[in-house]
Amino acid sequence: MAYQHWSYETLHRFCMDAFQAFGFSEEEATIIQDNLLTADLYGIESHGMQRMVRYHKGIENGMINPKAVPEIVFETPVTAVIDAHEGMGQLVGHKAMTLAIEKAKQSGIGIVSVRNSNHYGIAGYYANMACKEGLMGFSCTNSEAIMVPTYGRLAMLGSNPIACAFPAEPYNFFFDASTTVVTRGKLEIYNKLEKPLPEGWALDKDGHPSTDAPDVLGNIVKKNGGGIMPLGGSTEQLGSHKGYGYGMICEIFSSILSMGETSNYCMTGGKGRICHGFAAINPAFFGDPAEIKAHFSTYLQELRDAPKAEGQERIYTHGEKEVAAVKDRMENGIPVNDNTMVEMLDLANYLKLDFASYFGDYLPPVREAVFKGNY
Amino acid sequence: MAYQHWSYETLHRFCMDAFQAFGFSEEEATIIQDNLLTADLYGIESHGMQRMVRYHKGIENGMINPKAVPEIVFETPVTAVIDAHEGMGQLVGHKAMTLAIEKAKQSGIGIVSVRNSNHYGIAGYYANMACKEGLMGFSCTNSEAIMVPTYGRLAMLGSNPIACAFPAEPYNFFFDASTTVVTRGKLEIYNKLEKPLPEGWALDKDGHPSTDAPDVLGNIVKKNGGGIMPLGGSTEQLGSHKGYGYGMICEIFSSILSMGETSNYCMTGGKGRICHGFAAINPAFFGDPAEIKAHFSTYLQELRDAPKAEGQERIYTHGEKEVAAVKDRMENGIPVNDNTMVEMLDLANYLKLDFASYFGDYLPPVREAVFKGNY
Repeated sequence: MAYQHWSYETLHRFCMDAFQAFGFSEEEATIIQDNLLTADLYGIESHGMQRMVRYHKGIENGMINPKAVPEIVFETPVTAVIDAHEGMGQLVGHKAMTLAIEKAKQSGIGIVSVRNSNHYGIAGYYANMACKEGLMGFSCTNSEAIMVPTYGRLAMLGSNPIACAFPAEPYNFFFDASTTVVTRGKLEIYNKLEKPLPEGWALDKDGHPSTDAPDVLGNIVKKNGGGIMPLGGSTEQLGSHKGYGYGMICEIFSSILSMGETSNYCMTGGKGRICHGFAAINPAFFGDPAEIKAHFSTYLQELRDAPKAEGQERIYTHGEKEVAAVKDRMENGIPVNDNTMVEMLDLANYLKLDFASYFGDYLPPVREAVFKGNY
Repeated sequence: MAYQHWSYETLHRFCMDAFQAFGFSEEEATIIQDNLLTADLYGIESHGMQRMVRYHKGIENGMINPKAVPEIVFETPVTAVIDAHEGMGQLVGHKAMTLAIEKAKQSGIGIVSVRNSNHYGIAGYYANMACKEGLMGFSCTNSEAIMVPTYGRLAMLGSNPIACAFPAEPYNFFFDASTTVVTRGKLEIYNKLEKPLPEGWALDKDGHPSTDAPDVLGNIVKKNGGGIMPLGGSTEQLGSHKGYGYGMICEIFSSILSMGETSNYCMTGGKGRICHGFAAINPAFFGDPAEIKAHFSTYLQELRDAPKAEGQERIYTHGEKEVAAVKDRMENGIPVNDNTMVEMLDLANYLKLDFASYFGDYLPPVREAVFKGNY
């Protein structure tokens, strides 16, 4: 699959115009594109421009309501529950984390649980929002069922990512990971490359381990059974029950506390029904935040300096790879694959935007790939 | 290895007398033995009677100060930091979670971070304390370094368990797991049985995967390098960086927010230096707690009822196995292996307790096993 490299400014301008053409305000479009482009800058290709088609289709078919106004349905000085009323996940996510941050600044801790939302992009984006304010940030979301619980054969939990960020020097701790062993995007890459999946990733429709990417993906789409293993695999020997447990903790903060839908009901009946959880914790409510930050930074440096495994040159702390990825992409452009460019061309046509005014002479080669396999 | 089965009452009486003989009050002994016996009742043998020798040695050599009074060094309505002053982990743990519960009842959330403590038993015990009060409970602890970070060869994090409990019917959600793929106790069992370790558990001193239990354990004791892999293994393919990340989140709540020692300094210089984190979250600050509990219970039942993998009969929700284990052990006795009974005989002699008054005619067979490999 060929990749085009585009400057941050080009993609930024395209996204701003596209989301405003959908009817979002400039402020709203800014939030949405920042979430998507942060994913692309971090090298999380699956959650960047590649997701435009999902929002395009979601708005087109009514799953996402661009005019929805998130409603705070329950609130205390340290908690809140928000009903997204089927709006864009990024907008309610931004509102919810902003609220959690305010509470954490005022009262030390803020936890906000959100129901009736849609896909909100990368979980880490919201954790970062808190971290930029000197707070510990935490975010998680449920999603369409794809994780098969230990000893099951039907997906009952989403990929259920949990993200956590904490201020540190020279860069923040930033952890953002699905509680499945991998995400569906990884399976799709192997499928496109026509390679067998690594052992320990996926299950067939009967709940047996499988390396057959097209079969697994086909069963997922048709909801025949099978899916992705929890972090730790499919048996307790390597800790399957642990990944499944972290996925459950994600459900508690997202769908349970908000009285929203659990992952097994997400993306059904033409609705997103997705739920999110957000928390901000203020280190100043535990001591001197500068001392705490310095203490953590020391430990992170000790980790990076620790002896490496034979044949390895670096131990990474979480967030380090993202710092390098942002630097690389700001200098060398953001890679976008041709299939995604096809989707973006279609989006431009749908919204009556002049594709050439963003991407010049470039024309994506494979029109028939539109919407295939990415939604 | 032969096992003896003892009634809960017998072990309870022995522990109460032993800890009071060490100088703890009746109230303190009650807390400590309840933590240890809960582990044994749950089938977590490594953290029950088998740990008596650790507390025995710790008190004897001055690592644990039975007279220490935990001190609240920082406090707000929703947070606190406690210095354990090298006391028993269970006592400061109980105090810290009690404080978190009070704050959660009053203010919605309570987070308490503890430094300068010792081994506190099973993390889940404290999560349960909150759950019994209708709250979400959370607890974690760092510990002597045994987890090798991804691409490293020296252990830099502890087994760093994270526990979470949430009220549900017919039984609570109860999750308690190390962020390593397994705990050291599992390696010791394979060592005793002279069996090779399963692939994906341990690393040799150079950071390569190893199935050689005596070699791995020997290197851990001598701090030569190697140790246990994070949940997710030793490479990113199966998510090593995720287990390592959860281990880091554990450090944040335990050693970082409390300004205590990170795992790489635990159990050094004759000190425990162990840190814990506790949180209680009040569902009543998100909505109707009875509705939230019912909502979660429905999901847990859906998980148990979901289609099973071919050849499997049950999908467990977290906490279900513990409920069955308690029932079994209350009916059939708690199994204690002969090596542990040797340690308990030595402890009785040290404290001048009449071993026969608890265990009748039974005499453990292997005296030379005392203290070997368990500390």
